[in-house]
Amino acid sequence: MAIAILAGRDSIEQKQHEWFSKSWREELLALNPHLDIRIWPDVGNPADIEFLLVWKHPIGSLNQFSNVKAIQSLGAGVDHIFVDPDINTEVPIARIIDPYMASDIVQYVTAYALQHIKLIKRWSEKQQQKLWNKEPPFNLSEKMIGIMGMGFLGSKAAHVLTALGLKVSGWSQSEKNISDVKHYTGDAEFSDFLSQSDMLICMLPLTDKTENILNIKTLSQLPEDAYLINVGRGSHLVEEDLLTVLDSGHLSGACLDVFRQEPLPVEHPFWSHPKIQVTPHIASVTNAATAAPQVYENYSRMMSGQALLRQVDTKKGY
Amino acid sequence: MAIAILAGRDSIEQKQHEWFSKSWREELLALNPHLDIRIWPDVGNPADIEFLLVWKHPIGSLNQFSNVKAIQSLGAGVDHIFVDPDINTEVPIARIIDPYMASDIVQYVTAYALQHIKLIKRWSEKQQQKLWNKEPPFNLSEKMIGIMGMGFLGSKAAHVLTALGLKVSGWSQSEKNISDVKHYTGDAEFSDFLSQSDMLICMLPLTDKTENILNIKTLSQLPEDAYLINVGRGSHLVEEDLLTVLDSGHLSGACLDVFRQEPLPVEHPFWSHPKIQVTPHIASVTNAATAAPQVYENYSRMMSGQALLRQVDTKKGY
Repeated sequence: MAIAILAGRDSIEQKQHEWFSKSWREELLALNPHLDIRIWPDVGNPADIEFLLVWKHPIGSLNQFSNVKAIQSLGAGVDHIFVDPDINTEVPIARIIDPYMASDIVQYVTAYALQHIKLIKRWSEKQQQKLWNKEPPFNLSEKMIGIMGMGFLGSKAAHVLTALGLKVSGWSQSEKNISDVKHYTGDAEFSDFLSQSDMLICMLPLTDKTENILNIKTLSQLPEDAYLINVGRGSHLVEEDLLTVLDSGHLSGACLDVFRQEPLPVEHPFWSHPKIQVTPHIASVTNAATAAPQVYENYSRMMSGQALLRQVDTKKGY
Repeated sequence: MAIAILAGRDSIEQKQHEWFSKSWREELLALNPHLDIRIWPDVGNPADIEFLLVWKHPIGSLNQFSNVKAIQSLGAGVDHIFVDPDINTEVPIARIIDPYMASDIVQYVTAYALQHIKLIKRWSEKQQQKLWNKEPPFNLSEKMIGIMGMGFLGSKAAHVLTALGLKVSGWSQSEKNISDVKHYTGDAEFSDFLSQSDMLICMLPLTDKTENILNIKTLSQLPEDAYLINVGRGSHLVEEDLLTVLDSGHLSGACLDVFRQEPLPVEHPFWSHPKIQVTPHIASVTNAATAAPQVYENYSRMMSGQALLRQVDTKKGY
């Protein structure tokens, strides 16, 4: 009985995936040096493998493992698992919910939201002109921030933004009750949510229902001069549609950490668009050191026949 | 019996002071249209004036008011009052503590702190080079943020920064007990506080004790690559000393909203220093609309012989 780590779908990022897989093995062995942990493609006899740790595994690589009892995503998302048509949805799948990763993404969202709200670029341009001019002393803190996806991460972001005295609303498929946050639920209230969101922050999981949810129809429902932050997944956004609404002048800008194709191709228009800030999927980076204990706990639960923790609903896809 | 509003010490900002005084008169009249509110220099008979509303009043202008019973600062600070040698310290002086202004300054501090911690400039430079490169995925969120001045504003900032999962310590003259914040007290613990503060945020009131507190001796005690944010007062900082420690490479940068001379003179080296961000004293702008009720309340208390609220200690100077 052994554990296999499968990462490395994108050959261009192969070196990073190797470093990633090794850091997971190291942290798990620190918790239990007797674990038999193999890194793909050097997995030995596939029939030995009962527990799969996956992060963007190569499509098709799962077929060989006939004795797998549980799959653990090495990140908060599981969409990278469900894109594999070979996935056996009878096998339980768990994800990571790590306060360290959560802090990372909430810091990112707050940093880029405040950068826009507090007009940091404007003050920087005035400095370049040596211009002491504070009139009008406006900032954009009266604007409404709308968070799409009010799960663990979204509600943490809402907590910080409301503590900053900012106005926050949220949208999710299911009803939520979060203090100081006006919540909109489901398809029926989506248009109302969009039309009052001066800043839209996408923190959704990627599922069949949320793919392409940021498109010309939805982006056009945002108020004029609205700003978009996407830290969900690249496939939430129809990229040509964003360019259309930015170039029409309807949106004031966008900050994007995730893309349909990663790494973002060098010829992609986002790189040099004056209204777009690009970061290379760094809003939240899985940290093996802080998350290894919960992965090891799930391994132990599988071994003793208990249900996994942080298990996802294979029907909903998150 | 009448109220006088005195603002306008800096003739270069005269127009802004006029706008400021008029907005206060307007907001107070909205609360009570029978108030007799006069804007300096058109104060009529000075003997009528019992309640002074001051913000950078012209030095010497207070002498003429012999019947004043209370002075209300139209901002959080009172240092602009105590610099006047004619000030009568027998007259009670009150300041404003306004949640709206507090949010403003906490948003500013968080925005500029996160901008540095999350390396926004670095990601922006990578975008300009169309470089998808996330290794090492570091940010500076493991660094210790040290807040000088843990009063109403400082502790609000600490609350938000700890909610973001950042490490925060504080320093004040008196002992404080704030959750998740290591607190250092008084002169005895100041060096220890400085030596562990990777980012130093000055939110102190300006008094005889805190003037020039940011000097070559104290700035040199910060860890290498430390970053400074000053939203206190310009006179907290010995400006030449900051240039010396920046140019020696000891500090990594500074974000300054306040200066010894405001507006910052066009020939001042801060404007074009590559490691300094200048903003024109906009971190917190008094908002008459939100703060007028507490000013009117103090007026009413004076009229009925009650003690003022938010009164300052004229010995301590804050």
